[in-house]
Amino acid sequence: MKPKVVIVMGSDSDLPVMEEAAKGLSEFGVPCRITIASAHRSPELVDELVRDAEKNGAEVIIAGAGAAAHLAGVIASKTILPVIGVPLEGSPLKGFDALFSTVQMPPGVPVATMAVGKAGARNAAVLAVQILARKEKPLQGLLRSYKKKLALDVMKKARRL
Amino acid sequence: MKPKVVIVMGSDSDLPVMEEAAKGLSEFGVPCRITIASAHRSPELVDELVRDAEKNGAEVIIAGAGAAAHLAGVIASKTILPVIGVPLEGSPLKGFDALFSTVQMPPGVPVATMAVGKAGARNAAVLAVQILARKEKPLQGLLRSYKKKLALDVMKKARRL
Amino acid sequence: MKPKVVIVMGSDSDLPVMEEAAKGLSEFGVPCRITIASAHRSPELVDELVRDAEKNGAEVIIAGAGAAAHLAGVIASKTILPVIGVPLEGSPLKGFDALFSTVQMPPGVPVATMAVGKAGARNAAVLAVQILARKEKPLQGLLRSYKKKLALDVMKKARRL
Amino acid sequence: MKPKVVIVMGSDSDLPVMEEAAKGLSEFGVPCRITIASAHRSPELVDELVRDAEKNGAEVIIAGAGAAAHLAGVIASKTILPVIGVPLEGSPLKGFDALFSTVQMPPGVPVATMAVGKAGARNAAVLAVQILARKEKPLQGLLRSYKKKLALDVMKKARRL
Amino acid sequence: MKPKVVIVMGSDSDLPVMEEAAKGLSEFGVPCRITIASAHRSPELVDELVRDAEKNGAEVIIAGAGAAAHLAGVIASKTILPVIGVPLEGSPLKGFDALFSTVQMPPGVPVATMAVGKAGARNAAVLAVQILARKEKPLQGLLRSYKKKLALDVMKKARRL
Amino acid sequence: MKPKVVIVMGSDSDLPVMEEAAKGLSEFGVPCRITIASAHRSPELVDELVRDAEKNGAEVIIAGAGAAAHLAGVIASKTILPVIGVPLEGSPLKGFDALFSTVQMPPGVPVATMAVGKAGARNAAVLAVQILARKEKPLQGLLRSYKKKLALDVMKKARRL
Amino acid sequence: MKPKVVIVMGSDSDLPVMEEAAKGLSEFGVPCRITIASAHRSPELVDELVRDAEKNGAEVIIAGAGAAAHLAGVIASKTILPVIGVPLEGSPLKGFDALFSTVQMPPGVPVATMAVGKAGARNAAVLAVQILARKEKPLQGLLRSYKKKLALDVMKKARRL
Amino acid sequence: MKPKVVIVMGSDSDLPVMEEAAKGLSEFGVPCRITIASAHRSPELVDELVRDAEKNGAEVIIAGAGAAAHLAGVIASKTILPVIGVPLEGSPLKGFDALFSTVQMPPGVPVATMAVGKAGARNAAVLAVQILARKEKPLQGLLRSYKKKLALDVMKKARRL
Repeated sequence: MKPKVVIVMGSDSDLPVMEEAAKGLSEFGVPCRITIASAHRSPELVDELVRDAEKNGAEVIIAGAGAAAHLAGVIASKTILPVIGVPLEGSPLKGFDALFSTVQMPPGVPVATMAVGKAGARNAAVLAVQILARKEKPLQGLLRSYKKKLALDVMKKARRL
Repeated sequence: MKPKVVIVMGSDSDLPVMEEAAKGLSEFGVPCRITIASAHRSPELVDELVRDAEKNGAEVIIAGAGAAAHLAGVIASKTILPVIGVPLEGSPLKGFDALFSTVQMPPGVPVATMAVGKAGARNAAVLAVQILARKEKPLQGLLRSYKKKLALDVMKKARRL
Repeated sequence: MKPKVVIVMGSDSDLPVMEEAAKGLSEFGVPCRITIASAHRSPELVDELVRDAEKNGAEVIIAGAGAAAHLAGVIASKTILPVIGVPLEGSPLKGFDALFSTVQMPPGVPVATMAVGKAGARNAAVLAVQILARKEKPLQGLLRSYKKKLALDVMKKARRL
Repeated sequence: MKPKVVIVMGSDSDLPVMEEAAKGLSEFGVPCRITIASAHRSPELVDELVRDAEKNGAEVIIAGAGAAAHLAGVIASKTILPVIGVPLEGSPLKGFDALFSTVQMPPGVPVATMAVGKAGARNAAVLAVQILARKEKPLQGLLRSYKKKLALDVMKKARRL
Repeated sequence: MKPKVVIVMGSDSDLPVMEEAAKGLSEFGVPCRITIASAHRSPELVDELVRDAEKNGAEVIIAGAGAAAHLAGVIASKTILPVIGVPLEGSPLKGFDALFSTVQMPPGVPVATMAVGKAGARNAAVLAVQILARKEKPLQGLLRSYKKKLALDVMKKARRL
Repeated sequence: MKPKVVIVMGSDSDLPVMEEAAKGLSEFGVPCRITIASAHRSPELVDELVRDAEKNGAEVIIAGAGAAAHLAGVIASKTILPVIGVPLEGSPLKGFDALFSTVQMPPGVPVATMAVGKAGARNAAVLAVQILARKEKPLQGLLRSYKKKLALDVMKKARRL
Repeated sequence: MKPKVVIVMGSDSDLPVMEEAAKGLSEFGVPCRITIASAHRSPELVDELVRDAEKNGAEVIIAGAGAAAHLAGVIASKTILPVIGVPLEGSPLKGFDALFSTVQMPPGVPVATMAVGKAGARNAAVLAVQILARKEKPLQGLLRSYKKKLALDVMKKARRL
Repeated sequence: MKPKVVIVMGSDSDLPVMEEAAKGLSEFGVPCRITIASAHRSPELVDELVRDAEKNGAEVIIAGAGAAAHLAGVIASKTILPVIGVPLEGSPLKGFDALFSTVQMPPGVPVATMAVGKAGARNAAVLAVQILARKEKPLQGLLRSYKKKLALDVMKKARRL
């Protein structure tokens, strides 16, 4: 099945965090592709990846990167698809650098920025599904169930206390 | 025309910044509604607003707030629509507080966070259009033109230098 | 005995820190209830919890949460009881996010914010007792003894040096 | 009438901000005293003020200070009354210094910390009323009205938009 | 004369700061070109600019940008010329965002980062001359004179005091 | 021998860091006393300690504390002796809180602030010796030797590389 | 009269702030010299200044600088006199840069760091007097009077309220 | 062979990070010397090192230091060679102190600042090679190959995923 969402990360060391996004999408049955491309070390690969994503009908791109995290911004500069950015820890500056680099985009070129780290990777998947659900009605039902399950899980834990 | 995007802000003093979002949407011909509701001072109004938005077929909600900026997060907790958060300056902590309060959402409840202030308000509109464009093809063309215009404007300024 | 203080936390992973608040209250013989409710994942549970707390005669609510820590603020928006907020570590941003999200409340809706982490959880209990002591005289004596004990403990340690 | 709440600030230059607390209390008909005492420049005055406050039956102390804002903490070390701290801007470090100095209290000695600046001064008054309302029932009614008025004001502004 | 140094900035509003770099270079008689290109709004213009710079024999590229300041990093990803980055103020986050976005480059793709703002723009020129001076001996003499002048200026001011 | 320098710390858990100050002083043969007193938990002990220090002829007081580190400031408010402050890590805010709380003293009441943690504790000793050396000439010689030894140690390590 | 305290600043633009230190010293009748020397632009002038200060019997050096504020540290590396550092605002990073650059000295080379800006300049004078007072008894009396005056001024303002 | 690049670090504990710079240079066949000199503990050694570097024909100096990282700035004040600064972690303030101390240089005295830690050390080598390559053509080829290898490595990892 053609991937609806493309997940890119700046380095293979980001995989343990970013596969949370892939896991999230698969829970909703949304086909995705996960790959590596660095805005700084392989800019042409990034261009190619964006062209391929658009050509193959991807609807959303998720980009995770750390430090001077330019990956999401560079992708957003080359596509009209919604781009979701996940700032990653991993530099000595604790993710503050990645957060500011991802979120502070100039007027005209948004990056939908998520929380730093694993919570952000998970939420990138949920936001992608929320976007896809705008035209795929069945996903709306799944999102409603997911929301209920979140609440139920909290209640179960509350009861267990 | 029914609003496709609902723009909420925490206080009327946020209007000069948040109307940039409304302006952005109107440039793409996307009908929107702009209103005020405070997560802390009028929580029931927020509930109502979310219910209305869903009932009236809104597709995206944009929420701008400053300081302990909970508005976007509270809305996101109550809807499966994509929620875009715009952190606003205005407290002595210079928007660092609003940014962290908006972006650091827990797993399962994303807020698509934009840059602090006016750039973010503008980008909230662009992201909303990118999301709507997933099912409304004509918007894709407009986004492509917008992207070209952004580039052309830079080139013109470069030439004028 | 009916709980005079309700302690809520956003997630069961916060228990090791937040039970310090329960421990503190029990040292003063103040009955409390400790539970879980997430502002983002289970907003209705939060509503219910606030209603129950008010109905059952609770006098103070303590809320601990990390990251975009909205729990205390959301509770404060729904009650006239004093709400004490404990910002928790646990996100990559080291508690700076939870602190700003908890303390920077807008005019009209205060959250009595404590230190980040375990010191804050302990102090939430002490502040709750200070508040209760305004109408329960015996607690004033206990607080005075507690204060003396704090001083004595320091002196003992000083002597042992 | 004997003041129920004592408001202290570190310097007379803090008055334009801290009188927001006095204004807030007077809206609820709560008698208060507003004065100046510096933890660093007049430590004995602070001691005296705390003793007087306790002797005269004050129930809450509000302390506002900037920079290395020790005033609230020093007061909290000397009383079992609830102490509310308002961090103030005014140093080049923009209130980050005052916030950290006020909120990061060690276990056993809480300071109920409010937002930096005017919003915090207003909220100190509201929290003080919430505390007093625990034993003075009529204040509970006033707080409920105040909460409704906050919501109504938002609604009015929303309608006017 | 062919420009030895190309100065790029993300927006024409950066001109008042970045012309300090041009002024600095002209004081050393180094021909430069100053232009505008945005990493996010005109990525192709950036590509072109880098290709032109290399083709025309430029030896150093200076890039100034604010907020999520990716311009220097994007240029560095496409050239083996030394790239000097000047983080600019102008977003609500006071230049902290531009600094982290410019300096925290991943291994293999350096950006020689200068101070935030005008001091940085001036220093970008001086560093460029220091680099050029490695092969153009006369510039070494000029740099030595410049250094002496800096010291003399301080001494004069000291005497005038 | 009567202590010339009194070292105080807010808690016995600070001992591993603060004994570096005692060690430093003993290397210069300066008699010191090391003790515990908390500005917040044992304010009277702090008063007593300051009175004793002055009465017994101490010349310098060193105070180490973490979080809302008021110890040095409180001591400085009660004495005309030079007070050296050592901000300590140990709260989740990584020492930023202790640094701001220690250094940002208001006009008239200085605290000579050192680096956060062990480096600061060591330097508190060296600064104390520098102050004492103003009237005890032999210490000047020792300080000169110490300075030479610092340089020699670096040179030895450089040679060993 | 020979200056007992030498005040240095990195630039003449720092004069409005640093003359607060000179004013403070003159209030205590302590002769001082105020001059300019830049650690970065006139390193030899700094060397000379330190040698002169030592030769002429200065007892304390006060150094004020902004941004990457190395002046105090560089002076401390060359003398055994106590060095007091005043971090100054003036760069876009609001004095956070100057504070960290001044205070975070490595073991063996202390800089007695004051608050950022004017409060720090005033306190540098007071600390210098406290140091001189160790061997000049009359200064001790003046410091006690000064302390009383600080307290009286607060009391007067409190009364006027 | 005479070293073209001199690498200095403030302490031998910085070696595990700074040898990344030496490794990087050796991959390009650029002879370098790695040594230790502290701006604060051995200022004369720093002077000597700079004089030697210039006399022996070094073309670039790389300086790595932590905390109040003055090493690169002090070197830059004494030479017209390009100076590359690597801010190092290691103090409790997580490298924010070293970054600000290194990058915020005043007009006229640039330090080419790299990322904090190991990434920065590696990039210091690459920037040094980029500078040398301006007059040594063969290095340009090596840099192009290096750039290709960076891209290839990413592609290989992408394929392996």
